[in-house]
Amino acid sequence: MVTSFFLCSKKWMVMLIALVTALGAPIAYSAPADHAGAGHSAQSNPTTAALDVIEVVATGYTAGVESTGKRPGHPGYGITYSGVKVRRDQVSTIAADPKLFPIGTLLYIPGYGYGVVADTGSAIKGNRIDLYFETIKEVYEQWGKRKVEVQVLRRGRGKLTQSWLNEINQAVEAGKPIPQSYLES
Amino acid sequence: MVTSFFLCSKKWMVMLIALVTALGAPIAYSAPADHAGAGHSAQSNPTTAALDVIEVVATGYTAGVESTGKRPGHPGYGITYSGVKVRRDQVSTIAADPKLFPIGTLLYIPGYGYGVVADTGSAIKGNRIDLYFETIKEVYEQWGKRKVEVQVLRRGRGKLTQSWLNEINQAVEAGKPIPQSYLES
Repeated sequence: MVTSFFLCSKKWMVMLIALVTALGAPIAYSAPADHAGAGHSAQSNPTTAALDVIEVVATGYTAGVESTGKRPGHPGYGITYSGVKVRRDQVSTIAADPKLFPIGTLLYIPGYGYGVVADTGSAIKGNRIDLYFETIKEVYEQWGKRKVEVQVLRRGRGKLTQSWLNEINQAVEAGKPIPQSYLES
Repeated sequence: MVTSFFLCSKKWMVMLIALVTALGAPIAYSAPADHAGAGHSAQSNPTTAALDVIEVVATGYTAGVESTGKRPGHPGYGITYSGVKVRRDQVSTIAADPKLFPIGTLLYIPGYGYGVVADTGSAIKGNRIDLYFETIKEVYEQWGKRKVEVQVLRRGRGKLTQSWLNEINQAVEAGKPIPQSYLES
């Protein structure tokens, strides 16, 4: 019995490891579907010889005033720290902390594509990178899209008043459930 | 042997199911850490009585021109389809397809908090929702942030030239690896 237990537990162990590996990949990478920018080879990774794999937190940015403080017409508009122009292409310009990724570092970023470190940012320190997109809409649509399971708490009847919205916001305390009276349609 | 195999395979089956369940949750929800807006009770869900749970794709938006086409000063700036003002609060205004979620529907959105359907959008059809944020930066930082495992393909030496960036972009074909000569520092 002891022997046979070890025999079959070994077999199951292999299956367990295979399963953890199979399930582990999407967790580790957590790359949601429907994110690829067409033509940027964002979803597949044809490269085989990575020097290193590093977990970072990535946001999107544009050359615009919301990200850089510069508007079109500013002499530095669209020019990265390295001097090259911002670019969304087969190899896009990205921002990183040069202490972690020196300017000129080439990365493959799942869900985005190839990026070369060309820029820096005041908030881009340590394991943080900023991915260049041409428009704010592209940041929203190509990087800021998430699948979520929403809970329906109350079905609406097609109308909403300012007074009800003000009231419910006064009634709900942070971290507390919505009072039942507001959940009845 | 046959009996003992089934005995222990059953035991492992239970562990397997437990493991799949444990690993399955973060895949299904794929809610990355570090997304909560302070004060919006985004990470925890204190509500127990959901009428329904529905998977949707969610993006962020603002009242600004990049999302609505309206600038401050426009009579409809910051006013939702329902007539109420946009609001990021305990219960925020969000946009949905009224055919799926009629105006006035109350949702709990993991990673965002409570939202009431107040707005619509030309791209917000079917299982798509748009979450209101006060600024573009907040969309980037609070909704458009992802943990990714980046692959380091070439370590930079602190400098990048426009001609090298032009060259590599000409050399790389969509879906193909970067030619080896560009990976040598």
